[in-house]
Amino acid sequence: MRALRFVGGSLNLADIPLPQTDGEALIRVVKSGICNTDLEIVRGYAGFEGTIGHEFVGVVESADDRPQIVGKRVVGEINAGCGVCGLCLAGDPRHCPKRTVLGIVGRDGAHADFLCLPSRNLLEVPENVTDDQAVFVEPLAAAFGITEQVSIVPETKVAVIGDGKLGLLCAMALALESPNVSLIGKHLSKISVAQKCGVEGILLSNLTPAMFRHYDVVIEASGSESGFATAVDLVRPRGKIVLKSTFHGTPTWAASRVVVDEITIVGSRCGRFAPALDLLKTGSVNVEDLIDEEFALSKGVAAISRAEQKGVLKVILRANQ
Amino acid sequence: MRALRFVGGSLNLADIPLPQTDGEALIRVVKSGICNTDLEIVRGYAGFEGTIGHEFVGVVESADDRPQIVGKRVVGEINAGCGVCGLCLAGDPRHCPKRTVLGIVGRDGAHADFLCLPSRNLLEVPENVTDDQAVFVEPLAAAFGITEQVSIVPETKVAVIGDGKLGLLCAMALALESPNVSLIGKHLSKISVAQKCGVEGILLSNLTPAMFRHYDVVIEASGSESGFATAVDLVRPRGKIVLKSTFHGTPTWAASRVVVDEITIVGSRCGRFAPALDLLKTGSVNVEDLIDEEFALSKGVAAISRAEQKGVLKVILRANQ
Repeated sequence: MRALRFVGGSLNLADIPLPQTDGEALIRVVKSGICNTDLEIVRGYAGFEGTIGHEFVGVVESADDRPQIVGKRVVGEINAGCGVCGLCLAGDPRHCPKRTVLGIVGRDGAHADFLCLPSRNLLEVPENVTDDQAVFVEPLAAAFGITEQVSIVPETKVAVIGDGKLGLLCAMALALESPNVSLIGKHLSKISVAQKCGVEGILLSNLTPAMFRHYDVVIEASGSESGFATAVDLVRPRGKIVLKSTFHGTPTWAASRVVVDEITIVGSRCGRFAPALDLLKTGSVNVEDLIDEEFALSKGVAAISRAEQKGVLKVILRANQ
Repeated sequence: MRALRFVGGSLNLADIPLPQTDGEALIRVVKSGICNTDLEIVRGYAGFEGTIGHEFVGVVESADDRPQIVGKRVVGEINAGCGVCGLCLAGDPRHCPKRTVLGIVGRDGAHADFLCLPSRNLLEVPENVTDDQAVFVEPLAAAFGITEQVSIVPETKVAVIGDGKLGLLCAMALALESPNVSLIGKHLSKISVAQKCGVEGILLSNLTPAMFRHYDVVIEASGSESGFATAVDLVRPRGKIVLKSTFHGTPTWAASRVVVDEITIVGSRCGRFAPALDLLKTGSVNVEDLIDEEFALSKGVAAISRAEQKGVLKVILRANQ
């Protein structure tokens, strides 16, 4: 089968054997989405080698321990826990210390014709959700997962920093909970995608001191050190900063403001898939506006190059012929 | 009156006029405690000039708007809000942007014969609480305030980093909520103070990898950059780090671990006085073990020098003759 693999510091479309299922489900990938994490892996930042990709929709080919799902169209939670540790038994395989993560840690990923995942990770996709929409379940779950970590009510003043894919999804998802969501970014064209969903768009260059210490919750989704510094500026005393993007290096920060103003910083990575699927099923979030271009899997290397260009939003790979 | 003042970069015991009350209460100071914040001001880190000191017990000399408290022995909340902004009206003058803070921001402090505070800031000290104990209400409130920001139940595994005055108070206060509190420090003699309260003492040099990712809640009370790095090492996935000490400079940190393991960092400064007074009234925390030495106010400069020496815990000033 074909698989887009990062090995030995280079990215190639390889021809490799079908994966061994080892009791897991085998899924034929229909479409997969390129995420910034994929780009970081390809830049060598993440220490992963193998098939990249973790956002996908596919059809179950086999699932020995869950035969009723064979033939169904599915998406899949990307963390596969050991199944026996305390965290897994408590229903939190996302933080299992021995977990593998699809296309990110110790497990081949989704930019391929086939992938394997434990059958318990799979969720059936409702009929009225298109393949293109279903590809967004993973990042939308990550965005909407913020609402499980931080209270967002209609009165909550929210600022999202960063107008990339994740920032846009965060702004659009949180706008379902509060009419007071602002997206701060550098690109009018991207900001406008969120504005259609009732989000206020603010160009970074138009930030004024009146906005400092103003927001109850600030989402850092730019992944830049300056984005984190801006978040510390914008949040009100006793407010919350949600760190949605990993940083490279070790950003410096005004720890004294965090203590004196009793600010809370919340690290946030994944979210649950079921609520995100519900949002897509009910048409609450218009994710298709985020799609930049679709490539055939056979053009995977070119698709990654496209996704790396400035200003490009979601690039999708189509595995089926 | 006498006042221990930091002005123009130097510390002196000055003879100054009695303070103008401007409608506030006038308090005759009985005893005051030297806090690390005092030492930071004297080192020029805090940008404050005036009479230092914010931990005190005293007797009310006058209080035009609350005459019933005149003659009473009191402690006082150190933040004085403007009284009219949204935060003050919501009962949170601690975060009023125009607040003054006793001996720290825009308001002369407690290492003096007299001080002024709004009468609403004053709490009467129960009879069975000694002057020495009452001096600890402010730092004990700061320590016990953690329990209002982070859930601590008997099952919660807590690590406190730093065996200075604040770390010891945090460990002793949190040990009232959980039998699983460990204090990590560099000095066996200090750690032993907390051990008497059922806290497990761990020398920093004896930390083992088995302790990494082990604690539900980690309190950073060392005020050092390495202390924060240790906190990130020790906290479990989805655990919480409470920043209790301000840092100088801009510590670097492993932001990616905070995101991937969904760690929460909570800035924490002050706490409410009433619960801390209750702890002293019921004898729940033995703060007197923290007292190193008492000086007369007339020896205030020498007392500060003593407090600056390594290994010294609480130094108290006695204002009355």
